Amino acid sequence: MPDLPGLPRPLPESRAIDPFIVMDVMGEANAREAAGEDIIHMEVGQPATPARRAARERARTALERERLGYTEALGMPALRERIALYMRERYGVAVGPERVVVTAGSSAGFVLAFLAVFEPGAGLGLPSPGYPCYRQIVKALGLSPRLIETSAEGRWMPTAADVDRLAAANAAGLLLASPNNPTGTMALGGRLGELAAACRRQGLWLISDEIYHGLEYDAPADTALNHSDAAIVVNSFSKYFSMTGWRIGWLVVPEALVRPIERLAQNLYISPPAISQVAALGAFDGLEELEAIKAGYARNRTMLLEELPRAGLDAILPADGAFYLYADVSRFTDDSEAFAKTMLRESGVAVTPGIDFDSARGRRYVRFCYSGAEDAMREAARRIGAWLKPK
Amino acid sequence: MPDLPGLPRPLPESRAIDPFIVMDVMGEANAREAAGEDIIHMEVGQPATPARRAARERARTALERERLGYTEALGMPALRERIALYMRERYGVAVGPERVVVTAGSSAGFVLAFLAVFEPGAGLGLPSPGYPCYRQIVKALGLSPRLIETSAEGRWMPTAADVDRLAAANAAGLLLASPNNPTGTMALGGRLGELAAACRRQGLWLISDEIYHGLEYDAPADTALNHSDAAIVVNSFSKYFSMTGWRIGWLVVPEALVRPIERLAQNLYISPPAISQVAALGAFDGLEELEAIKAGYARNRTMLLEELPRAGLDAILPADGAFYLYADVSRFTDDSEAFAKTMLRESGVAVTPGIDFDSARGRRYVRFCYSGAEDAMREAARRIGAWLKPK
Ligand SMILES: Cc1ncc(COP(=O)(O)O)c(C=O)c1O
Ligand SMILES: Cc1ncc(COP(=O)(O)O)c(C=O)c1O
Repeated sequence: MPDLPGLPRPLPESRAIDPFIVMDVMGEANAREAAGEDIIHMEVGQPATPARRAARERARTALERERLGYTEALGMPALRERIALYMRERYGVAVGPERVVVTAGSSAGFVLAFLAVFEPGAGLGLPSPGYPCYRQIVKALGLSPRLIETSAEGRWMPTAADVDRLAAANAAGLLLASPNNPTGTMALGGRLGELAAACRRQGLWLISDEIYHGLEYDAPADTALNHSDAAIVVNSFSKYFSMTGWRIGWLVVPEALVRPIERLAQNLYISPPAISQVAALGAFDGLEELEAIKAGYARNRTMLLEELPRAGLDAILPADGAFYLYADVSRFTDDSEAFAKTMLRESGVAVTPGIDFDSARGRRYVRFCYSGAEDAMREAARRIGAWLKPK
Repeated sequence: MPDLPGLPRPLPESRAIDPFIVMDVMGEANAREAAGEDIIHMEVGQPATPARRAARERARTALERERLGYTEALGMPALRERIALYMRERYGVAVGPERVVVTAGSSAGFVLAFLAVFEPGAGLGLPSPGYPCYRQIVKALGLSPRLIETSAEGRWMPTAADVDRLAAANAAGLLLASPNNPTGTMALGGRLGELAAACRRQGLWLISDEIYHGLEYDAPADTALNHSDAAIVVNSFSKYFSMTGWRIGWLVVPEALVRPIERLAQNLYISPPAISQVAALGAFDGLEELEAIKAGYARNRTMLLEELPRAGLDAILPADGAFYLYADVSRFTDDSEAFAKTMLRESGVAVTPGIDFDSARGRRYVRFCYSGAEDAMREAARRIGAWLKPK
């Protein structure tokens, strides 16, 4: 980087990380909206709904009655217990509350887990396409991302052979997201167990990003904890629980990691947001509201899997979960960023170019997020159809 | 670290960071309280009061009306503007809102600033005694802490000569906290300008932790921005604004750093908590409530500076700001951790051993935090007096 005027010394070259492009797209979409344009948001991966009522009620009561100071670094004991219970209810897995770490979103969970288990410079296997922040967090923390090219034919999931290759290349862990972002695909048919076994055999950490659990449209997702005691599970209230802006999530870690992670959390975060922890306690009170939201996503998914192919976007896997479709747009472009920009400008629909998730092959893909209101999603499909027609 | 049973590989030796001892003390104090003991908290550096009413009102309205999703990574534009205005109102310094970065507490501010400006391995000067997390964050991020021994005679502040020594030893920056934690002392009488000039002359980054600004009992604290355009200012709503658990703070950075920090923030945090940003907007609406709280701290300070010496703790500097007194307890012990534990057990007053802030000399010091209610602080002084008497 050039020596910038007025700075005491040049900025570090080694730290230059890529932007998280979806956030830039959101910025432009918001600016257009503020300027009066009618924009449909399919770019940012967040629910259109607020946190459920019981969560907001708890937050309101806390606002009136509690000081909302720093909490324990690992999170409020009552929330850790409630999460442990949820793990049992949902997956039938027995996890003691002492193994649950409440975090400021799964974003904080990754930082804590990576710092706790990896030496500086250690290699971490990251399936590609994948959530872009993994790569950047890994780089910012001085670790080494080892991209694993997955394929549409393999439903964008890594294999046990990939784990063997990681080990041969001296990597120290594998990060798996199932359902995956941006593809929505899952490790089904025994794949999760195979990956866990391969990691165990090869002595690799398995870090399982389960943030899209709860949002599956066919087979329910299983937790890595049912396949490995040593797995590190990363989860969050952001997606299924519809609480993105609250910045609250959790880890389940092997007991030996609790104290190292506590020390890191004390020093790097002090504690997760208190009001969000209180709200999260309410997020579990009966899940019907969340299931109703999910049913809306399911209808959006069905509708888009019909309408987008009609508009010419016929190379889309019928994703198993999350609220994403990853569409091959190579019929139209080999520059997905320009394609997305033009789509936003000309049709008012914001989507994310694939390069955010896969810097090379992503030039031929865009990601649609269908967490919006059903009307808006239907209108988006109509606009995209009209926009693509003359091409 | 030993190879722990059941883990795929040993935990990284290089990552072993010290615990943040005050959090452990708080844990024990809370456990005793839960078991029915009557504990007075003078250990954790947080206000006993909740966020001010206007902040909580805004949060309540947002709970009802807003989605509270991810915000822009740099923070909501309205909050960045309000903070820029506050900087002008408070210090007379002109800072454009584009230079303001909203963060998840100053804790996140340090991570973002350090990663944005320092190469891996770079040395950062940290005055000692100082806030323990600096050291641990620096280590966790692969940077190198360079401790600067300050002295009670020098009011625990570094000097321009220290900056020269840092530069000679190839360090890349200085972190200054004024008022300081744990000592409450400030860089007065032109010291701030001298340090800023020395950093400029030597090409070092100056990172100014201004989190205790607003809490001064004599001369008001000046911002480093009045002495250097290149200074990185770290601030927070935690202390003066009484919002610790909300995890919300801000940075003011040179314009050239905004984009690098935005990228880091997008990837490492996505955004600061939305409800906390909304609440923070309300935190500025008339500061009388906060001034009343501060007047209570001032009374506690005056009372303790009378009572603690009577109890035998006569080696305390009359700190200029924050809500701490750092007492030399070498008349009683050279093991401040044991001393604090015994005090907690026998008198029910929780304080923090100095080793949290200064691993060697801190064995002869403890920190008192006087942000509690006036009655409780008075009772604490009484208990400590009674407890020390027979010794
Ligand atoms: C796969 C995946 N993991 C993690 C995250 C981070 O979410 P949060 O920090 O809100 O929990 C996201 C957000 O989009 C994601 O898509
Ligand atoms: C000197 C100093 N800086 C920073 C912090 C971190 O505060 P927060 O992350 O709540 O803004 C503290 C907290 O005690 C502190 O004492």
